[in-house]
Amino acid sequence: MVDKALSGAGLRGQVAGETSLCTVGKSGTGLTYCGYDITDLAENAKFEEVSYLFSRGHLPNQSELNEYLSKLKKLRGLPQALKEVLERIPKEAHPMDVMRTGASMLGNLETEESFDEANDHIDRLVAVFPSIICYWYKFSHEGKRIETETDDASVGAHFLHMLTDKKPNELHEQVMNVSLILYAEHEFNASTFTARVCASTLSDIHSCVTGAIGSLRGPLHGGANEAAMELIENMKDPEDAETTLMGMLERKEKIMGFGHAIYRESDPRNTIIKKWSEKLAADVGDNRLYPVSVRCEEVMWREKKLFCNADFFHASAYHFMGIPTKLFTPIFVMSRVTGWTAHVKEQRANNRIIRPSAGYIGPESRPVPPISER
Amino acid sequence: MVDKALSGAGLRGQVAGETSLCTVGKSGTGLTYCGYDITDLAENAKFEEVSYLFSRGHLPNQSELNEYLSKLKKLRGLPQALKEVLERIPKEAHPMDVMRTGASMLGNLETEESFDEANDHIDRLVAVFPSIICYWYKFSHEGKRIETETDDASVGAHFLHMLTDKKPNELHEQVMNVSLILYAEHEFNASTFTARVCASTLSDIHSCVTGAIGSLRGPLHGGANEAAMELIENMKDPEDAETTLMGMLERKEKIMGFGHAIYRESDPRNTIIKKWSEKLAADVGDNRLYPVSVRCEEVMWREKKLFCNADFFHASAYHFMGIPTKLFTPIFVMSRVTGWTAHVKEQRANNRIIRPSAGYIGPESRPVPPISER
Repeated sequence: MVDKALSGAGLRGQVAGETSLCTVGKSGTGLTYCGYDITDLAENAKFEEVSYLFSRGHLPNQSELNEYLSKLKKLRGLPQALKEVLERIPKEAHPMDVMRTGASMLGNLETEESFDEANDHIDRLVAVFPSIICYWYKFSHEGKRIETETDDASVGAHFLHMLTDKKPNELHEQVMNVSLILYAEHEFNASTFTARVCASTLSDIHSCVTGAIGSLRGPLHGGANEAAMELIENMKDPEDAETTLMGMLERKEKIMGFGHAIYRESDPRNTIIKKWSEKLAADVGDNRLYPVSVRCEEVMWREKKLFCNADFFHASAYHFMGIPTKLFTPIFVMSRVTGWTAHVKEQRANNRIIRPSAGYIGPESRPVPPISER
Repeated sequence: MVDKALSGAGLRGQVAGETSLCTVGKSGTGLTYCGYDITDLAENAKFEEVSYLFSRGHLPNQSELNEYLSKLKKLRGLPQALKEVLERIPKEAHPMDVMRTGASMLGNLETEESFDEANDHIDRLVAVFPSIICYWYKFSHEGKRIETETDDASVGAHFLHMLTDKKPNELHEQVMNVSLILYAEHEFNASTFTARVCASTLSDIHSCVTGAIGSLRGPLHGGANEAAMELIENMKDPEDAETTLMGMLERKEKIMGFGHAIYRESDPRNTIIKKWSEKLAADVGDNRLYPVSVRCEEVMWREKKLFCNADFFHASAYHFMGIPTKLFTPIFVMSRVTGWTAHVKEQRANNRIIRPSAGYIGPESRPVPPISER
């Protein structure tokens, strides 16, 4: 077998497999899930319809949706052993390490014994991730053991309810819904590819998801919305934003929330979340973060022809809803778990173990010297 | 950017990056770590010298080795919170899920805050994995809270000591040493590639290792030595082995422990571990498992030109030392963690995020139908 060198590092632009789940930037801008445009879904569907689409292969009709929502509601409780594990994770821990450990521990308690069970485990993960992060957060930060079995209608409302101790208003529930749709799936990004490599060994679904969380934790992947928040939270007004950004560009500092590995002109998710951030700003009477964010967008385009990606206006939107910055990336998990697990099932359905080769650049063959001669 | 289709599924034969750590089958048979032949290392080095080689880039001299061994000894203790997590994992859990959860939990308690700390975390993982699996095993299976801080000289002896409640004899310690060397590294196999994809997002070392464990758990990757044990343990004698295997071949059943994705004629690790299995058989007075294994090797070569890989004689060797079959793959983790983490550091040193493309085979663009029309 002759090994072929790839043209670029990081497998960029190299087709590593096939998918029917998603197109990213076919024309440089678009994003579709199973053929449905992300803009159409964000306007006309609930996150749970998207989640159903990925796990069942079609959009649900009303009775299918009702049954699915009712199933998800019943899956919000945490096993006692998992609660006790979460209580042992310190306040200072990285919240993505909490998500990773929660998923891994659940795999000990509710192991996927056969691939036939996949959808039951997927539904469980979709329903329980908000419980995992909120249970740990409220226990470690406020010393409270919260009830995770609420009767909220949606995943987004369930999360906000546990976090803020009250039922969210309609606007907040809507924004969470849109946000969870926007982050649900993005083809062979690094975390999804991690899940597929793991799935290709025919490992269980908790291993695949645990591995994907670990990859999403990396600052080059998830975490851009947190970095965007840290950027804008200290900007006093649009003028200050202008000065700060110009200085950062001058010093060639990395500015998160702009540009994309695949999109060239714009990120279709930005237009959508920006509109919702504006509504939230009006609702809470903000006259700083939203205008500051808009100025950042203008400066980056004017100076660098860089556009906001999905993450940038998510920062202000989440902040307006009272979500602590450190929980931004865990929300990404609550959403992307639907895409990851759909890829796991797709990999399993037509599998070959993912085992590439490496170009060797190390030392030539040499004998092991006796320890006295080293 | 034009996407290039790869010639085969699973990235087989495709160079996905560079490494100076390992060559696999350059001539169809060999295996070298940093230029040193595996046979040479298995005869003339300890596992800890190999582990040092991977983390420090050179074989240690005597004083470096002494210092390293003494450091590893001090890192065998489990944090109280980790013990309490392990105590909450049921006896029925998959031991690889225990390893995965142990690694993930440790990441909450001893987070890698900067890549400068990598070697300290790597040393910790090398030292503590035997403690993690034995603590859980002894607690869940025998209700005992064992002391993990023994003063055994090697990783292998530490493991056997905790597992069997006594210091291992010299032969057993030697076999563990050889076994840990043989499994330490194997280029871009699926678990190592998982660790590199994770590392390419600049995630932390516990995420990389946790993800790799999840991939090694899959039956197409780790676990072949367990499957080999399940195969041979019911064979009464060589004649029975012959009959059983011929029947399985007739029925086209999968037989684990033979052949390899890359090696074509033989696996260099087999000759080595086979010799040690023979010594152990003589030592324990076995006249069944070893002869049965030899007959299996003969039948598979005669009938299918398939050779034993690293896993096949590992089954009998581990069994002769009194290791329960379900702990075979966790031993693989204790060893391979040295290779995984060396790859993580190599990826970080010259990084580009690993983000391939996918060929789209899904539905064409379509509008979201109103729910009443689905």
